[in-house]
Amino acid sequence: MSAIRVEGPAGTAFARGPFVAGGVVILEEEEAHHLRVRRVAEGASIRLVDGKGGVATARLAIERQVLAARVVATTTVAAPPRTELLVGAGDRERFLMLVEKATELGVTRIVPVVTNWSVTVATRFQTQHVDKAMRRAREALKQCGGAWAPQVVAPVSLTEALRAPAKDLVRLAAHAGGGPLPRIREGEAVQWLVGPEAGLDEAEQAAVRGAGFVSVSLGRSTLRFDTAGVACLALTAAARLKGQDR
Amino acid sequence: MSAIRVEGPAGTAFARGPFVAGGVVILEEEEAHHLRVRRVAEGASIRLVDGKGGVATARLAIERQVLAARVVATTTVAAPPRTELLVGAGDRERFLMLVEKATELGVTRIVPVVTNWSVTVATRFQTQHVDKAMRRAREALKQCGGAWAPQVVAPVSLTEALRAPAKDLVRLAAHAGGGPLPRIREGEAVQWLVGPEAGLDEAEQAAVRGAGFVSVSLGRSTLRFDTAGVACLALTAAARLKGQDR
Repeated sequence: MSAIRVEGPAGTAFARGPFVAGGVVILEEEEAHHLRVRRVAEGASIRLVDGKGGVATARLAIERQVLAARVVATTTVAAPPRTELLVGAGDRERFLMLVEKATELGVTRIVPVVTNWSVTVATRFQTQHVDKAMRRAREALKQCGGAWAPQVVAPVSLTEALRAPAKDLVRLAAHAGGGPLPRIREGEAVQWLVGPEAGLDEAEQAAVRGAGFVSVSLGRSTLRFDTAGVACLALTAAARLKGQDR
Repeated sequence: MSAIRVEGPAGTAFARGPFVAGGVVILEEEEAHHLRVRRVAEGASIRLVDGKGGVATARLAIERQVLAARVVATTTVAAPPRTELLVGAGDRERFLMLVEKATELGVTRIVPVVTNWSVTVATRFQTQHVDKAMRRAREALKQCGGAWAPQVVAPVSLTEALRAPAKDLVRLAAHAGGGPLPRIREGEAVQWLVGPEAGLDEAEQAAVRGAGFVSVSLGRSTLRFDTAGVACLALTAAARLKGQDR
């Protein structure tokens, strides 16, 4: 989206940190494969990211016949403000696409939520898809130049999702009948709840209100869960930018 | 996303309007197929939508061995405010997904833009994909309960895209270095420009500024073009809701 093309490293690889200048990092097969596909050659400058704020510039090298990276310099990026998305565990392909976009938009934790009216969705995102979601998040992180990978957890019940401590946390629920987005300070912790497309039943809605969630409208239409998830996080990112000056 | 399950018609079908109470609408094969797959039976109440503000409730019937709908009542929905998205003609699968989400968020026109650094993308959205995009928009419209389908046009050059009359039109360009979203009144016409992932070259950037586009930041990350497109439209929908009171 950036309108300026940045000349930079020939590629980015995800690797376990911490990175130490002068050290050698052995790349995992999947990461090495990506670099080979992109024809990044030995000696090329690459970017390493550990998903926990650790970033390094490094040079590709072959060490004991495997692809490695010799760390040239390291940087530590401060943790982003806590931005959580509790979202109905809908169709897994859509869920994975949402994980990608949520990562680009700075989400820090994604919690798939199983509700009374979504539990029967045959293609829904389930525990066995969490690894794939984490990989998708890492790919998105490399793409967008971020330094912190979100945590994607296994699906939990709505009761369990609401139980999380709400201290110093702005809780917002996407709801067609809600109000406008409240002001968000740049570093403020935010937790969004996006229901499944089938909606929440009355008892669930009462539980959400009881847990301190404020209803926020995203517009006039009924949005798919993945669209709503991206919309919430886009509003949050924009609100944090505005919140910088306050 | 709506937290309330609405009891309504058994399905929605796209059909050519205008609809007249008491009239019979023959359903196109694709629409009839969708209803059959969803096991919507003869006599069931369905919703018809023509994508131009015409909405009807109708009952499924078999007329001369084809699936038809007998119109019970009609409604006309006012046109939504003009909301255009000029967007780099990137990967077609991502572009189609963006068309779906943009439709849910109330876009009225989508213009794929070919730029100097995106013209070489092998999988890019091209003229032969426009029909598929329009179908995807209609499906999204049925899903989200909207009444107006966006127009998706064939790819144009950036020069051509910028030439559109800018009278009474708020022109906004997504740009990492931009400012916050300006206020948007509810009915105000808005046109967004989202560059391709490769960015715009210097001459193109100058042309965009010259055409009166104001740079707006969507956050800190470099967003994929499809993520940026959804983010722009989510911000616009939220801003219009806020703008209602002004």
